[in-house]
Amino acid sequence: MRYAASVEYEGTNFCGWQRQSSVKSIQEEIENSISEITQTNIRIQGAGRTDAGVHALGQVFHFDTDIIRPIKSLTKGVNSFLPDSIRIKWVKKVPDGFHARFSATSRQYQYLLNNAVINSSIWSNHCGWTFYKLDPKLLKIASQKFEGRHDFSAFRSSECQAKYPIRSIENIRVEKFNNFYLFTINGDGFLHHQIRNMIATIISVAKKEISADYIDTLFEKKDRSLTPATFSPNGLYLTNIKYDKTWGFPDNLNTLNIFKA
Amino acid sequence: MRYAASVEYEGTNFCGWQRQSSVKSIQEEIENSISEITQTNIRIQGAGRTDAGVHALGQVFHFDTDIIRPIKSLTKGVNSFLPDSIRIKWVKKVPDGFHARFSATSRQYQYLLNNAVINSSIWSNHCGWTFYKLDPKLLKIASQKFEGRHDFSAFRSSECQAKYPIRSIENIRVEKFNNFYLFTINGDGFLHHQIRNMIATIISVAKKEISADYIDTLFEKKDRSLTPATFSPNGLYLTNIKYDKTWGFPDNLNTLNIFKA
Repeated sequence: MRYAASVEYEGTNFCGWQRQSSVKSIQEEIENSISEITQTNIRIQGAGRTDAGVHALGQVFHFDTDIIRPIKSLTKGVNSFLPDSIRIKWVKKVPDGFHARFSATSRQYQYLLNNAVINSSIWSNHCGWTFYKLDPKLLKIASQKFEGRHDFSAFRSSECQAKYPIRSIENIRVEKFNNFYLFTINGDGFLHHQIRNMIATIISVAKKEISADYIDTLFEKKDRSLTPATFSPNGLYLTNIKYDKTWGFPDNLNTLNIFKA
Repeated sequence: MRYAASVEYEGTNFCGWQRQSSVKSIQEEIENSISEITQTNIRIQGAGRTDAGVHALGQVFHFDTDIIRPIKSLTKGVNSFLPDSIRIKWVKKVPDGFHARFSATSRQYQYLLNNAVINSSIWSNHCGWTFYKLDPKLLKIASQKFEGRHDFSAFRSSECQAKYPIRSIENIRVEKFNNFYLFTINGDGFLHHQIRNMIATIISVAKKEISADYIDTLFEKKDRSLTPATFSPNGLYLTNIKYDKTWGFPDNLNTLNIFKA
């Protein structure tokens, strides 16, 4: 039997999503907690990997088990074994053809950027931060440069394992709440470090270090060494993984958009 | 020479404001960091104590030193020695007659309560949480019961060291943002655990466990054992300490009120 599940997590104290030996991963915490409920060895497959310090409002994963447990045990029960920083939101039985990663049709991330002289002690694990004066118009222009289908070679980590560097970004929305910028990015998929490198580049344009047109050059040159240094993971949130409606999942409406204008 | 300073902190990983042997306090971190800059042994006096897990947007303290350092060293310089979870916001030279605690004319706290079936993994260190269905009208009625001058004996910790249990609450504002309630509480001063016990009682009324009028009974009986259990520190923020304008401090406008309606 295959189950799909949605999970929210605060990534600060984890090495990231993916199980690794000798460091604490979100995947391992979830696998151990479901295994406690089923009393068998459970392995889960996530829709996407997130780095150390990156958060999620709507990561999705699937797992297989022949053990029959009520859905309540797989949500509330599993949550009782998980740390407060990881919460299963829903679990649903799915046909075997479902695959958290390969059935996904698109992904949404949000990035929260604090633009203030002094970083917030309260939200420092929950936002990126820059004290440079940013031009909001340039910030929007730079963001829009990334929309569409591009070769993102200049924006992927040297450790990126994807076969092809071409990805499509449907749209990037930028909103401002007090001294915070919130970026909402929809795309078919993202390369390793792609969003954090995009954010670094957008900030670089908005603080007038590089021109917005330089982003076209980066697309052309495909050279990671020309791109500004990868920006902080702290402001990055995997908010939604989208699937065909026929799977019947609860509406994905996760958003960090809780800031009052 | 006496200096006043304002500090913001994320209280999750501290034993609270007050210096204690063998555990990490905010006071100790600040004292050590200022001592690094002045190269002398600095002791600070806070306007109020906060418990383990309680945050501050605008705690105020003062300290004395004969060592002359530029203000920038006492802000940016001190911050460079502090963990990200503690940020000095401003430092100002003051007359010797100023006292962070005794010169304060009033205090403001905010309490953030998450009312949701599952607690947020992202904000769990930053809010209290209850899954009970709350009646927003009863919540407001219960809150207003605390306004005015009362004997708060039933709402103080057994370890409270204050001489007199009488305090005045100027007003309590309750706002709702999505599934969050934000309480803003202005008063002349607060007893140990007073706000967390008030919040526990307000929730108890709003979930129809006790009646709003029972709060009058609690004021009369002055018996802590009749009051609901102290609520979580995670949602409590010391937002503002108010002083006479003649001290010339930057306007206190700290607020957690960043949630979008």
